[in-house]
Amino acid sequence: MAKTIVAVIGCGTIANNAHIPAYMANEDAEIKYFCDIRKERAEKAVLEYGCGTAVEDYRVIMEDPDVVAVSVCTPNNVHAQIAIDCMRAGKHVLCEKPAARTYKEALEMQKVQHETGQTLNIGVVNRFNKGVNIIKQMIENGELGELYHVVVSFRAHRSIPGLGGDFTTKAVAGGGALIDWGVHYLDIVMYCTGDPRPRTVTGQAYSKLGQDLRNYAYLSMWAGPPNYEGSYDVDDFVTAMIRTEGPSISVNGAWAQNIGVEETYIDFLGDKAGIRLQYGKEFTLYSAKHGALIESTPSYPNTNAFQEEIDGFIAGIHSGEKLPSHIDTVILTAQMIEAIYQSSDEGREVSLVEAGAPA
Amino acid sequence: MAKTIVAVIGCGTIANNAHIPAYMANEDAEIKYFCDIRKERAEKAVLEYGCGTAVEDYRVIMEDPDVVAVSVCTPNNVHAQIAIDCMRAGKHVLCEKPAARTYKEALEMQKVQHETGQTLNIGVVNRFNKGVNIIKQMIENGELGELYHVVVSFRAHRSIPGLGGDFTTKAVAGGGALIDWGVHYLDIVMYCTGDPRPRTVTGQAYSKLGQDLRNYAYLSMWAGPPNYEGSYDVDDFVTAMIRTEGPSISVNGAWAQNIGVEETYIDFLGDKAGIRLQYGKEFTLYSAKHGALIESTPSYPNTNAFQEEIDGFIAGIHSGEKLPSHIDTVILTAQMIEAIYQSSDEGREVSLVEAGAPA
Amino acid sequence: MAKTIVAVIGCGTIANNAHIPAYMANEDAEIKYFCDIRKERAEKAVLEYGCGTAVEDYRVIMEDPDVVAVSVCTPNNVHAQIAIDCMRAGKHVLCEKPAARTYKEALEMQKVQHETGQTLNIGVVNRFNKGVNIIKQMIENGELGELYHVVVSFRAHRSIPGLGGDFTTKAVAGGGALIDWGVHYLDIVMYCTGDPRPRTVTGQAYSKLGQDLRNYAYLSMWAGPPNYEGSYDVDDFVTAMIRTEGPSISVNGAWAQNIGVEETYIDFLGDKAGIRLQYGKEFTLYSAKHGALIESTPSYPNTNAFQEEIDGFIAGIHSGEKLPSHIDTVILTAQMIEAIYQSSDEGREVSLVEAGAPA
Amino acid sequence: MAKTIVAVIGCGTIANNAHIPAYMANEDAEIKYFCDIRKERAEKAVLEYGCGTAVEDYRVIMEDPDVVAVSVCTPNNVHAQIAIDCMRAGKHVLCEKPAARTYKEALEMQKVQHETGQTLNIGVVNRFNKGVNIIKQMIENGELGELYHVVVSFRAHRSIPGLGGDFTTKAVAGGGALIDWGVHYLDIVMYCTGDPRPRTVTGQAYSKLGQDLRNYAYLSMWAGPPNYEGSYDVDDFVTAMIRTEGPSISVNGAWAQNIGVEETYIDFLGDKAGIRLQYGKEFTLYSAKHGALIESTPSYPNTNAFQEEIDGFIAGIHSGEKLPSHIDTVILTAQMIEAIYQSSDEGREVSLVEAGAPA
Repeated sequence: MAKTIVAVIGCGTIANNAHIPAYMANEDAEIKYFCDIRKERAEKAVLEYGCGTAVEDYRVIMEDPDVVAVSVCTPNNVHAQIAIDCMRAGKHVLCEKPAARTYKEALEMQKVQHETGQTLNIGVVNRFNKGVNIIKQMIENGELGELYHVVVSFRAHRSIPGLGGDFTTKAVAGGGALIDWGVHYLDIVMYCTGDPRPRTVTGQAYSKLGQDLRNYAYLSMWAGPPNYEGSYDVDDFVTAMIRTEGPSISVNGAWAQNIGVEETYIDFLGDKAGIRLQYGKEFTLYSAKHGALIESTPSYPNTNAFQEEIDGFIAGIHSGEKLPSHIDTVILTAQMIEAIYQSSDEGREVSLVEAGAPA
Repeated sequence: MAKTIVAVIGCGTIANNAHIPAYMANEDAEIKYFCDIRKERAEKAVLEYGCGTAVEDYRVIMEDPDVVAVSVCTPNNVHAQIAIDCMRAGKHVLCEKPAARTYKEALEMQKVQHETGQTLNIGVVNRFNKGVNIIKQMIENGELGELYHVVVSFRAHRSIPGLGGDFTTKAVAGGGALIDWGVHYLDIVMYCTGDPRPRTVTGQAYSKLGQDLRNYAYLSMWAGPPNYEGSYDVDDFVTAMIRTEGPSISVNGAWAQNIGVEETYIDFLGDKAGIRLQYGKEFTLYSAKHGALIESTPSYPNTNAFQEEIDGFIAGIHSGEKLPSHIDTVILTAQMIEAIYQSSDEGREVSLVEAGAPA
Repeated sequence: MAKTIVAVIGCGTIANNAHIPAYMANEDAEIKYFCDIRKERAEKAVLEYGCGTAVEDYRVIMEDPDVVAVSVCTPNNVHAQIAIDCMRAGKHVLCEKPAARTYKEALEMQKVQHETGQTLNIGVVNRFNKGVNIIKQMIENGELGELYHVVVSFRAHRSIPGLGGDFTTKAVAGGGALIDWGVHYLDIVMYCTGDPRPRTVTGQAYSKLGQDLRNYAYLSMWAGPPNYEGSYDVDDFVTAMIRTEGPSISVNGAWAQNIGVEETYIDFLGDKAGIRLQYGKEFTLYSAKHGALIESTPSYPNTNAFQEEIDGFIAGIHSGEKLPSHIDTVILTAQMIEAIYQSSDEGREVSLVEAGAPA
Repeated sequence: MAKTIVAVIGCGTIANNAHIPAYMANEDAEIKYFCDIRKERAEKAVLEYGCGTAVEDYRVIMEDPDVVAVSVCTPNNVHAQIAIDCMRAGKHVLCEKPAARTYKEALEMQKVQHETGQTLNIGVVNRFNKGVNIIKQMIENGELGELYHVVVSFRAHRSIPGLGGDFTTKAVAGGGALIDWGVHYLDIVMYCTGDPRPRTVTGQAYSKLGQDLRNYAYLSMWAGPPNYEGSYDVDDFVTAMIRTEGPSISVNGAWAQNIGVEETYIDFLGDKAGIRLQYGKEFTLYSAKHGALIESTPSYPNTNAFQEEIDGFIAGIHSGEKLPSHIDTVILTAQMIEAIYQSSDEGREVSLVEAGAPA
């Protein structure tokens, strides 16, 4: 079989840490273009990976009939535009999370996917995580009994990324801790619990600890160093309570907070058993039997979720298989995140019952 | 000065662990009656403490002009009735928490207090806790900067009290984990943050793990042993999100859950500093200075909050001083708890903005 | 800007662990020579770092007009000679600590610095340590109140370096635990407390545990292995009490002792607060507020103090800025160390009041 | 044998915790008098122990020919007067530590002991401690090799006793941490090392943390509660360095300091082995053998040192045996303590070489 020709649009952290190495390791894929509006990044990738051509403008890629598929690894503000343009140009698309800055943009992307029939997967990489899939299976098997509530905690002491840069600029990123971290957590919840439709959403998002850019104390910074001339108008703390057709969900998340404890987990509360998943790590199952309380810690082979995501993307182009990362499956999360921001602005709960179902 | 004659109504756990020993240690107080509808409990107290008379009916106390003050340590369902009767009979009242089963009952108690002018304190004993008072002072001093959110967690693995008894019977207790534990946590939050008026309340309360009484696995049980013929219709898990005129508050609480980790704390999030109070224990202050993140753990003399509560009650009868445990100060908490239950029943957020201010 | 040409004289542990990597990472510096009387060491450096020329005799460096600056990383006995020769040859000098074997030698170095105007920094690298600088700032801000005493402890169970080699030979090193470790501790004390002038010094230094070279038991040895044919006539335990114009200072230090506990800290005792600095690690602040005792542990970004020392040296050559590691600032420490040895020899306290101020 | 009639002069903490129970448990002793200038204390003892007569004035005891022996448990300021009066009245005396407020007073007591031949033991109770005696024996056996230095640390975070009372009033107690705690530590050192004569003493004593009586933060207080109207003019921190005919000794001690770590130990440093004695607890021996470092923790039966002290006193009266707590053995400690205070006042080392030997 001829190799599938791909292009990587946006050559920042996630491209270099995940997409590019995974394409390099996929025997059926070949990278023809590295694209970045900061051209030196694209050129550095050409040098480092020893393949492809560096371009600044993704329209070169759109117009090259050789290119079958693209990864969109840009800041959030151009996700929708590039993904839509590429689908209309006949390319299959893997777009990093979040799908877009807003629910409306995400719906537009979904619409174009439905019109064109091109693949549109979103980078909800945890859906390829082995532990997450075991949890999903346990819940489906009824091993937890009735799953009535999920506690989501993504709280860090100091983890604002790239203070003053794209990550902390709402016009670019669409939001902060919620849209950047929360999207992963809520996506895991939705995936494991069978994508229950949300009914009510209430929440408050705060932009506090990075406001005084020069006096933000921290130990290390990813996507740094800080740009003290930049802007900071995104949420660094968010709280929310969501009712769905399935379990209710409570959320507390912080990129930064004045509590020096990192608590990053999802608790699935069932009436027969419960699970605490330490985000990105192992999980523990709590149950009871024979009058005893039982704590179980499963072990399983560590697989590379990013590799599985890319391999599935390439394979799915040819097989037509719809992956769990398909745009249709993440649209509910986009709706919930938008509703949290709306609720925060309005200071009251948002009902999604009458909102109509996303297609 | 002649001793203040008191009576203890209800001779269960809280009476024996807290009220009675504190009256015994107060040089100005003398217990004349121990009252309990299970008369053997009252008689046991007479024997054990070597003073007083055992009675079954609290009307004996109401009618004895010697009695100046009473402690109400009964189940929640008779708090309002007894407190009101005693105030109308000219007695000063210290009533255990929660004030009552419902907000309506609490308002009725408050009304009678205002009419009669008798003392009506509620057993919100944390308001006499040294650490809690230091936190309150720090917040008032502005040491936390703007306090924007409070995270409340009172989650235990297995701690349902007296399964099948008064505690788990809604008609008696008015509720479960929320009304029994949550009332303390919310009271601390309200006390430390200056009693901000609640604006919106959303929540869900679940009655799950004790439903199958015989198969409830546990390691130990306070107020036990279980009564397998009894009823279980109260919440063992509750989640909520509250907006107030001050900080927002998120709540997760469990008498029992299938997550084997005990997390019982209150996090006060300010933009200059934050505090984690381990309930009933020490607290930690997180701040930043000189570019460093600083974790501070204060130590202070352990005082007996129950003793201070009783001493303050007795002294206040004579001085007329209004204590922080006065019914007026805990009525907001009663309103919030009621609103959480209402929101849970209706599946939607409850607005208290138009509800009018409690007097 | 043309690069600053430097030479490294002495290619042992401190050169390879600190100076050379820091010059390599400094974009404005270029190493032209590696010099060591054991020429194979110099040649190894040329190979390993891929630059420079290996020489045996530092006079080659003195005579090369390209060389702007040198690091002196030799044993202590030739510090003064090389530093002085290089300054007179018009080079800027960064000399490892201690400045010299004796106070007299250090004064001579200072004199030549003043005459030539060339830079002479000493490798008191803790002055570039982030935590040390925060402590200094706290003390200057008055956060400790009156600082009345400092407890210095640098006691290890077994840490004699290079038994039988340069480190344990007085004619080469000038002393043992005091001059090698104590110099760092005393320098931190002087730096943080504003370089108070010493008034009285009493001390005793003992050379005990390494005396019987072959029977010295140990777990590991840096700058080893032992040379059983070598000499051992330096202090492995030292105790001292110093009065200054500021706080008094008590010192206990051991390269080796028959107490199996490592205690390496500096306690700053103030009447408002105190600090324990764990040498090379974090520090803890002890204070009191609101009637509570408070223990605070700051965190801050780890910076590479050696890199800052080298970067500051190179930058200072051009800017003329006087660094905190300037010879003028460490001369008091040299005086104190000399006085401890003198006091030990004479068995009585040494007064420095009449000694006159070092320039 | 007829019982030995004794009297206890001073009925405070040390009398009730140590002397009285030990006399009660000694079959050969009988308490005839409890004496205290606060007569209610004496009366309380009569009630509590069911024997003896309460008196206010110790001259009653002096004049009663039945009384053979007395314990002096008063504040330090009357130790000398009472002990001397009682000896001259023909009584044997056990006087609590320190012998007196000053060396001069102690010498006077010793002189009268020599003149009268009556027993004069001082309450250096550690000389009856089992572990201390094992250490003494090990040192005498040469198991530590040459003992060259002793590190003394009696540092507590907050332990000022009876703030504002006798303990913190120099005119009564003679001093603070040094005379109250330090005397025990130095006495152990002297006892274990064979009472080496001191040669030079330098030290500084500070009175800091209790100065602002009302703002002294603490967790608990022995000999409390504080008297905010009282005085505070004694040392709460002391540092010293002592040369003796035997080992040198370094001392750091604190009744209170802003370092939140309790370090209360004595380290005996020998060139063959060393011992850390945790004050009042176990000890650890560090040695080396066969190229290995060895840590040894001995266990031995716990005996009651106070009982042994009293039993030895009573038995010694009849046998004439001179106990290790004889005034002759503790006079050196009194000299050292006085010299530390003198050195602190004068800001310079005190030489005891020419001071002449205490008899």
